[in-house]
Amino acid sequence: MYQNQMNYKVAWGDTDAAGIVFYPNFYNWMVNGTNELFDAIGYPASKLFAEEKIGLPLLETFCSFKSPVFFEDNLQIVSIIKEIHDKVFKISHQFFRNETLLAEGYELRAWTSFAADKPKAVSIPDQVRDALGKRD
Amino acid sequence: MYQNQMNYKVAWGDTDAAGIVFYPNFYNWMVNGTNELFDAIGYPASKLFAEEKIGLPLLETFCSFKSPVFFEDNLQIVSIIKEIHDKVFKISHQFFRNETLLAEGYELRAWTSFAADKPKAVSIPDQVRDALGKRD
Amino acid sequence: MYQNQMNYKVAWGDTDAAGIVFYPNFYNWMVNGTNELFDAIGYPASKLFAEEKIGLPLLETFCSFKSPVFFEDNLQIVSIIKEIHDKVFKISHQFFRNETLLAEGYELRAWTSFAADKPKAVSIPDQVRDALGKRD
Amino acid sequence: MYQNQMNYKVAWGDTDAAGIVFYPNFYNWMVNGTNELFDAIGYPASKLFAEEKIGLPLLETFCSFKSPVFFEDNLQIVSIIKEIHDKVFKISHQFFRNETLLAEGYELRAWTSFAADKPKAVSIPDQVRDALGKRD
Repeated sequence: MYQNQMNYKVAWGDTDAAGIVFYPNFYNWMVNGTNELFDAIGYPASKLFAEEKIGLPLLETFCSFKSPVFFEDNLQIVSIIKEIHDKVFKISHQFFRNETLLAEGYELRAWTSFAADKPKAVSIPDQVRDALGKRD
Repeated sequence: MYQNQMNYKVAWGDTDAAGIVFYPNFYNWMVNGTNELFDAIGYPASKLFAEEKIGLPLLETFCSFKSPVFFEDNLQIVSIIKEIHDKVFKISHQFFRNETLLAEGYELRAWTSFAADKPKAVSIPDQVRDALGKRD
Repeated sequence: MYQNQMNYKVAWGDTDAAGIVFYPNFYNWMVNGTNELFDAIGYPASKLFAEEKIGLPLLETFCSFKSPVFFEDNLQIVSIIKEIHDKVFKISHQFFRNETLLAEGYELRAWTSFAADKPKAVSIPDQVRDALGKRD
Repeated sequence: MYQNQMNYKVAWGDTDAAGIVFYPNFYNWMVNGTNELFDAIGYPASKLFAEEKIGLPLLETFCSFKSPVFFEDNLQIVSIIKEIHDKVFKISHQFFRNETLLAEGYELRAWTSFAADKPKAVSIPDQVRDALGKRD
C-alpha cells in the first residue's frame, strides 16, 4: 500500500493558551498528508479538482492523542493507504517526534465528482487504484 | 446528562475551494460546544485554567460527516455528556441545519492538572460530576 | 455611512501559547464583520457569490493592536464603511471589550466578478452604493 | 539587515469558496517567517518564551495583495528586518510565486517580557540587535 512521509515544524499559531497544540490542527495535517500522498502518485488534488472536478470529501475522521505536542516540535507525519473500496478509501496518519508516536488517526474519504450541482461519489479509477498500490 | 445547544453561522473562512466547510472546523466547533457546556454549568474553561490550572486535553476525537455544509449555513450544535469516568469523560456533538443532522462526533477528554511541569490527569471533582448530572 | 455591530466571544483555539489571541484571528473577525454588514443591507456574500459570481477580494488590510485579548473575552466588533469609490471600498473595524478599544484596522476591498476565468474588478452597483449609505 | 527565506506550498484548507487563499493566512505565514528568522539567528521563539519569558506581540500589521494565490502554489516568503528601535522592530514580508510578487506586508513587534502579571515591552538585548545586523 502506498505510503507518504512529510515533515512539519509546529508553528506558533498551532498552540493554545495551555502551550500545547490545539487539536483540530492534527486534522489539518492529515489533510496535508493526504494531499502530499496524492501528489506523490501523480494525482495532485489541485489538478484533480481543476481538470476533473474530483474532490475527496470526508465520510469520517478519527484521531487518538498519546502525548502533548509543543511549539517548534519537528513532526514526521506518515500517511498510509489502508483500504480501497469501490468509491471509498481509508488513509491512516501517524504523527511522530523522533521515534515517539504522538498521535494517530485516519480519514475515510469518497472519490467524488463536483461536476453536477450536487457532489456525487463515483468509482475510483483503475489507474488511481493501481497507483495506490492495490486492486481489490 | 447535561446538554448544551449553541448556534453558529458558517463563516467565509470556514469553506474551502470546493465551496464546502473544511472539515477540521467541525472539531473547532466541538471545542466551542464543550467550552459553552462547561460555561453553562458554572465552570468556564478560562477560570478553570487561570485559577486551578485545570485543562481538558483530548484522548480521542471522532466525527462522521453526513451532508456537506456551506457558507452562511445556520448550524445548531448540540453537545451532550455521554460518559463520566474517574478522570475521563466523553461528550458527543451533533450538528444540525434545521432538522437535518449534518455531522456527529465525540471528544474523549481527561480532567488534567497543568500545575506541575508535566500535565497529569486527576479525578473529576464531585461538584463538577454533580453539575454534569451524574454520579457513577 | 453604514455601520454594523457584532459580538464575539474569544474561543480557546483563538489563543496561542502566550495565552493571548493569535493576531491573524483579528482578520478573521474583520471578514466576519464585513460579511455581517453586507448581510444586514440585504446583500449576503453567499448570495452575491452563488447568484452573481461577485466576491470581495482584498487589496490591503491593516490592524493596530492596543491591548492583549484573552480567552472568553466578550468582544464588540464595530464595522463601518469609510470610503466608497467606483470599484473599491474601505471598511474599518474596531474591537472593543466593554468601553476599551483593543484593536482597530481596515480592509480595502474590490467589487469583483468571478464569472470569467480571471477575477475582474467591476463597478459597485448603485443599489449597493445606496444601501451602504453614500453616492460619491 | 538580516533576511530569511522560506518556502510554503499552499494547503487545501488555506483556500476559500472562491478558490483563492483566505487572506488571514498571509498573516499566519508572516508569523512563520518571523519565527524562522529568529530561529536562524539563534533565538528560536520557543526558547525565548520558555527560558526568558520573552514574546513578540504585535503593535501593527499590514498586507497589500497584488495577485490571487491558489491551492498548491509554491510560495517563497522573504522576511527582512527593516527597522530596529529600542523595544520595537519592524519586519517586512514579501510573498513570491517564481518571480512574481503576490503580496507584501509588515509586522511591527515589541520585545516583551511575560515574566510579570502583565506583559511589558523591554529593550531589545544588544546581542539580538547585533544578530539582526544593526546597531542604532
